[in-house]
Amino acid sequence: MKLYSMPSSGNSYKVRLLLGLLGREDVERIDVEYGSATLERAHADGRLPFGKTPVLELDDGILLPESNAILSYLGQGSPFVPTDPVVHAQMLSWMFWEQNQHEGVIAVRAALLNYPHRKAQATPERLAELLVSGTGLLQIMDDHLSARDWLVGNAPSLADLCLYAYTHTAESRGGFDLTPFAGLRGWIARVAALPGYVGL
Amino acid sequence: MKLYSMPSSGNSYKVRLLLGLLGREDVERIDVEYGSATLERAHADGRLPFGKTPVLELDDGILLPESNAILSYLGQGSPFVPTDPVVHAQMLSWMFWEQNQHEGVIAVRAALLNYPHRKAQATPERLAELLVSGTGLLQIMDDHLSARDWLVGNAPSLADLCLYAYTHTAESRGGFDLTPFAGLRGWIARVAALPGYVGL
Repeated sequence: MKLYSMPSSGNSYKVRLLLGLLGREDVERIDVEYGSATLERAHADGRLPFGKTPVLELDDGILLPESNAILSYLGQGSPFVPTDPVVHAQMLSWMFWEQNQHEGVIAVRAALLNYPHRKAQATPERLAELLVSGTGLLQIMDDHLSARDWLVGNAPSLADLCLYAYTHTAESRGGFDLTPFAGLRGWIARVAALPGYVGL
Repeated sequence: MKLYSMPSSGNSYKVRLLLGLLGREDVERIDVEYGSATLERAHADGRLPFGKTPVLELDDGILLPESNAILSYLGQGSPFVPTDPVVHAQMLSWMFWEQNQHEGVIAVRAALLNYPHRKAQATPERLAELLVSGTGLLQIMDDHLSARDWLVGNAPSLADLCLYAYTHTAESRGGFDLTPFAGLRGWIARVAALPGYVGL
């Protein structure tokens, strides 16, 4: 298997994190950073079906896009995928919420602040709007995590890994203030302490 | 079980469509339209964990938000969830893409054009932008569907149901032109011909 992975991207990092936690070293990693020739080649060769990274290329050539679908595929049968049907569905709730709400705000604010090719869109109004809505999203996570260690069930799951990716850099990259969110900060520390953890 | 469902919303419709196709009549439906007292009550009673519809309330009171997570929960063991791990992962790819890309453009343009409380955001620039990006997303689906009947595998899956919701009204509500997309139009007709189909 090959993983088309963008080193600077949280969506790609999610997959690298899961591979680290699973101790899997059988996935060849192809780094495709913004502006690189390898990214252009991956596009030109039709390796990015939705035009985005990450993409997992299976040994028979099947291309699997979307970070959270890749997590689900690689995570099956592992302790990070709950077997209880209700807990499994709750995990998916957080994962879809991550892609529908969280990523489009927390990750986008970080991208506007850090990627040179996005700077033109980083107007003060847009950044202020994203700060308010993103803080509301972090509040939802903090409310939930102030009463429990992990987002669903009693153990870390794909929901924690996928939401960790952009949440743990919300402060350093996205300019959000995590000081009031003690529940969230404790959870970030718990994810970072998992055996096999790899950083961004 | 109870389904908190917004009659005008494609995300809620997905779940009603699956329930129709499965012939399930054991789920009590609570309609929570924009501006209604029932929606306000659902918010006030903490029935909408992420502040959005639909939400499935299980018999033990557990609240399951996110349309595609509800589809996954209700669809398990049905013909709409592929048992092959790769096809299952491909289904999830489309479902995450739907929430990350498609819904934020196709559904949002329809919302701006049709919901009175969104009209202020419906600037000509925003609508023009969404028309271009949405047409690109419909093209991705059309390219894929011009060579096959269903998005993944050889049978309709949750991927088809979730993407049908906002795609089949992209023209009537969103102002997109589906004329050039023959693959897409054929697929829309195939979904609408499924036994047990219910309309929006």
